[in-house]
Amino acid sequence: MSDIPPDSIPPDFTPPSSRPLDSAPTAAEAPPLFEGRWCSLPECVTELEAGTLPTGFKAGGVAAGIKPSGKLDFGAIVSTGAETTSAARFTVSSAPAAPVQVCRTRVDLSAIRAVIANSGNANAATGPVGRDNAFYMQGAGAMVAGVAEKNVAVASTGVIGVQLDTRALSKGASTLARELRAEGGMDFAAAIMTTDLWPKTASLRVVLPSGAVTLSAQAKGAGMIAPLHAPAAPHATLLCFIETDAKLSAATAADLLGAAVAQSFDRVTVDGQLSTNDSVFLIAGGESGVEVESGSPDAEIFQKALDALLLGLAIAIVRDGEGAGRIGRVTVTGGDTQLCEKTARAIADSPLVKTALNGGDPNWGRIMQAAGMAMATAQPEPIDITIEGVSVAGGGIQNRFDQDALNQAVSGPEVEYEVKIPGQGASATVYFSDLGHDYVTLNAEYTT
Amino acid sequence: MSDIPPDSIPPDFTPPSSRPLDSAPTAAEAPPLFEGRWCSLPECVTELEAGTLPTGFKAGGVAAGIKPSGKLDFGAIVSTGAETTSAARFTVSSAPAAPVQVCRTRVDLSAIRAVIANSGNANAATGPVGRDNAFYMQGAGAMVAGVAEKNVAVASTGVIGVQLDTRALSKGASTLARELRAEGGMDFAAAIMTTDLWPKTASLRVVLPSGAVTLSAQAKGAGMIAPLHAPAAPHATLLCFIETDAKLSAATAADLLGAAVAQSFDRVTVDGQLSTNDSVFLIAGGESGVEVESGSPDAEIFQKALDALLLGLAIAIVRDGEGAGRIGRVTVTGGDTQLCEKTARAIADSPLVKTALNGGDPNWGRIMQAAGMAMATAQPEPIDITIEGVSVAGGGIQNRFDQDALNQAVSGPEVEYEVKIPGQGASATVYFSDLGHDYVTLNAEYTT
Repeated sequence: MSDIPPDSIPPDFTPPSSRPLDSAPTAAEAPPLFEGRWCSLPECVTELEAGTLPTGFKAGGVAAGIKPSGKLDFGAIVSTGAETTSAARFTVSSAPAAPVQVCRTRVDLSAIRAVIANSGNANAATGPVGRDNAFYMQGAGAMVAGVAEKNVAVASTGVIGVQLDTRALSKGASTLARELRAEGGMDFAAAIMTTDLWPKTASLRVVLPSGAVTLSAQAKGAGMIAPLHAPAAPHATLLCFIETDAKLSAATAADLLGAAVAQSFDRVTVDGQLSTNDSVFLIAGGESGVEVESGSPDAEIFQKALDALLLGLAIAIVRDGEGAGRIGRVTVTGGDTQLCEKTARAIADSPLVKTALNGGDPNWGRIMQAAGMAMATAQPEPIDITIEGVSVAGGGIQNRFDQDALNQAVSGPEVEYEVKIPGQGASATVYFSDLGHDYVTLNAEYTT
Repeated sequence: MSDIPPDSIPPDFTPPSSRPLDSAPTAAEAPPLFEGRWCSLPECVTELEAGTLPTGFKAGGVAAGIKPSGKLDFGAIVSTGAETTSAARFTVSSAPAAPVQVCRTRVDLSAIRAVIANSGNANAATGPVGRDNAFYMQGAGAMVAGVAEKNVAVASTGVIGVQLDTRALSKGASTLARELRAEGGMDFAAAIMTTDLWPKTASLRVVLPSGAVTLSAQAKGAGMIAPLHAPAAPHATLLCFIETDAKLSAATAADLLGAAVAQSFDRVTVDGQLSTNDSVFLIAGGESGVEVESGSPDAEIFQKALDALLLGLAIAIVRDGEGAGRIGRVTVTGGDTQLCEKTARAIADSPLVKTALNGGDPNWGRIMQAAGMAMATAQPEPIDITIEGVSVAGGGIQNRFDQDALNQAVSGPEVEYEVKIPGQGASATVYFSDLGHDYVTLNAEYTT
C-alpha cells in the first residue's frame, strides 16, 4: 500500500521477492520505462540519466528516522526559477490525509516553489494534531527552500493513523537543507518509497520548435492504487513530482497536467483502492527560457513528452504493484464511454481475472463474467473478447482457437485484453496488476 | 467460483483445506446455520433433520458424468401439489447463462412444478447451441417430473463456455426419474455443489397461527459471489431452491421471496463478482393445507422463518467462500441509504480489508481508506469505526484502545465492523469472506 496501516511492515520485513524493502535504489534496478510494448518516447524526446533534474531545480533526501529501518524517508525539491509556476491534483477521498488538506487550504497551488515529502508515515486519520504537524512540515519546507510557506506543498506516505514525529522532521530538515543539490533527484526518489521495490523516476530531454527543455519526475506507488476517474474532478493518484525548466503559465501547466494524468495515473489499478494521500505536482521553473504557450506546436510536443513520462511511470507503478507478477492491459470499445470505462475497470479489478493473469491462464470466461456484471442489463449482450490478438469469444460465445498457442502467449510478463461491447466510437483502457500469493503475503501475513 | 472456466479444476484437484471436492456430503460436516452470532431461528421455528422435504415434494441427485470426478452432478426437485405456485429471481448479468435465459422466456415462473439442475457445467457463453441444450434439459425435466415443460425451471453451475453433454443428460434423466423420493433432499444438495466444501441445506418446521408448515432449501455458492442489490431489479444470487408445503398465492410467494433475498443473498460477497448463473426459486406445493395470506400474522411468521433460512444459507456461503478463513460483517450507518450501501460494499470488497481480516489484523486504517474512497467528497468527513465493540476511530481520528485486547478479539472466526458516516436513519449490512492464500491457490494455481 502507499499508506501502510500501523505497524504493518515490521522493520525486518523482507518482501516475497527476497529483495529487501528500502534497499538503496539504483537506476540500474528499475525496469526501463519506455521500452515496453505499451509506452515509448515520441520523436524529439530522448531519455537522460535517471535522477537528472532540469536547470534551476535542487533536490535531496535524508534519513530522518521516520522509517524504523533508518532508510531515506524525508526529501524536498526546490525550484529556484523566479517565475516558477505549478499545478497539482489530489485524491477525492473523504478521508484525505493532513498534507492533502494543507495543500488544498494553505498552498498557492499555481505557485509551488518547493515540495517537502516524507515516507514511513502517511499523516492520515490524524485529525487536528495531524494538520498541525503538516503545517509544521510545511514550515520546515519553507526553511529548507528559503521560500514563503504558501509556496511549499506537502506530501506524506506510509503508516495511517500515527502522528508524525516532529522532532525527527526538525532534525531531518536541518540535514536536508544542506543536502539539496542539482544531483539530488535519486535521493529524493528513494526518500518517497514505501513498499516500492525500485525507485520510479525518469528524465527527458524534449526538443521543442522553440528550443530544448528538460522534464523529470519522481513517483512512488506499489499499493492502494486506483485513482478515481471522473475527468473533471480535481484529483490524482499516488505521489508524483514533476519538474521542468520550460516556461509555462499556471493555466497551461494545469491543462498539460490534467490531460497527462487522465491517460496515465487515472488509468491504472493495483488493488482498486483509492488512497488517502494521492497527490501529483507539476512545477515549471522556466530557467530554460523556452516558453510553451497553450495550443502552440511547442505545447503539443510537450504534452506528448509529459504523457509518455507519466504513462511510463504509471505502468512502472503497476509493474511494481504489491506482489505483482504479470501485468495486463484491457481496452474496452463500444458505444458508451461510461460503460466502456465501467466494464474495463470491472475486468481490471476482478480478483478472478487477476488470479487468472497471475496463473498465466487465458481465462476468457472470467472476462465475460466481469463484463456481464458491469453491463448488468439482465439480457445476453454480444461481447467479443480477444486475448493477445487471439479472438477467443465472439457475440458472447467461445470461438475456435489454438489453446496451446494462447497459453504460451499469456505466459509472458504482459498480457493484452481487448473487449468489444455493443456500439462504437467509445473506448477505455486500464492497466492492472495480477493477484498472487505475494499480495496476500504482504497484506495479510506481515501485519500485527 | 460458482461457474468455473474451462478445465480450471482438474479431476484430481484437492482444495487447500485438504478436504476433497465432491466428496460425499454429510449433514454432520456442515457448520450449523442458526447457531452463529448473526443468525438464529425465530420463535415458533425449529430445525428438522437436514434434507427433510415438505410434504408433497420429491428430490434426487445422480452422477450423470458431467463432472469428470464422477460425483453427483444432476438433480431435480418436484412438487406434486395440485395447486403449486412459485416465484424466482435471476442474475442481472449481461452474460446470463442459457438456463437463465430459458427460465426467463420459456417458464411460467409463477407455476414452477419442478426444477432440474446440473453442476460441472454452467452452460454459459454457449450461444444458441447452449440455449438448445437448456431446452433439452427442460424437456428432460418435464419427463422426469411428469409435468409440462413450461412448469420446469432449469439451473446450471460449473464450467463456462463448454457445451453440455446432452447424452449424459439423457442417460442421467432416466436414472433420475427412478431416484426421485421424499428423502432425496441431501442427494439434490450434493448434485448442485461445485467448489463448495460442504452442502448448504436446511429444513425448518414453522408453527403458524393457522397450522404448522415445513420450509426447506438447498443452496450452493463458494465463489463468484456478489449479488447486485438494486432492490427492485428481478435478480438473485447463487443457486438456491426453496420448498414449502404452505399454500401461497404466486404474488405472496414473490413478495416473501423478494423480501427474504434482499436481506440475505443480496447482502453477501465473497469476491465481488456477479455470476452468470445466479438463480433462486421458491416453490409452494400447498399440501399442508395451511394457507398463508399476504399481510396476515401467518405471513409475518412465515417471512421471519424464510428470512432466517436464507440468511443462514447466505452466511454459510460466505463461510464456505473459496479459500475463506474468517468472515466479517460490516454495518454502515448514516443519513443516506445509497451511500451506506456503497460504503459497506467498498469495505467488504476491499482486498486490503479482506487480507487484514485473513491475517487477524484489526486494521482500521484500511477501513477508513475504503470508506473515504466510497464517499469521495474530497473533504475530510467524520467517520467512526468500531471493531468487535471497540471504538478504534472517532471523527476520522484514532481513539485510544487496548490493542492487545482488540488483536485477541479479531482472532476468532467472525469479526464485526461498525462504521458511522454522517447523518442518521439509514444503514446497510454486508457479510463477507476474507482473502487469503487459499483463494489465490484455488483461482490462480489450479487452472490450465
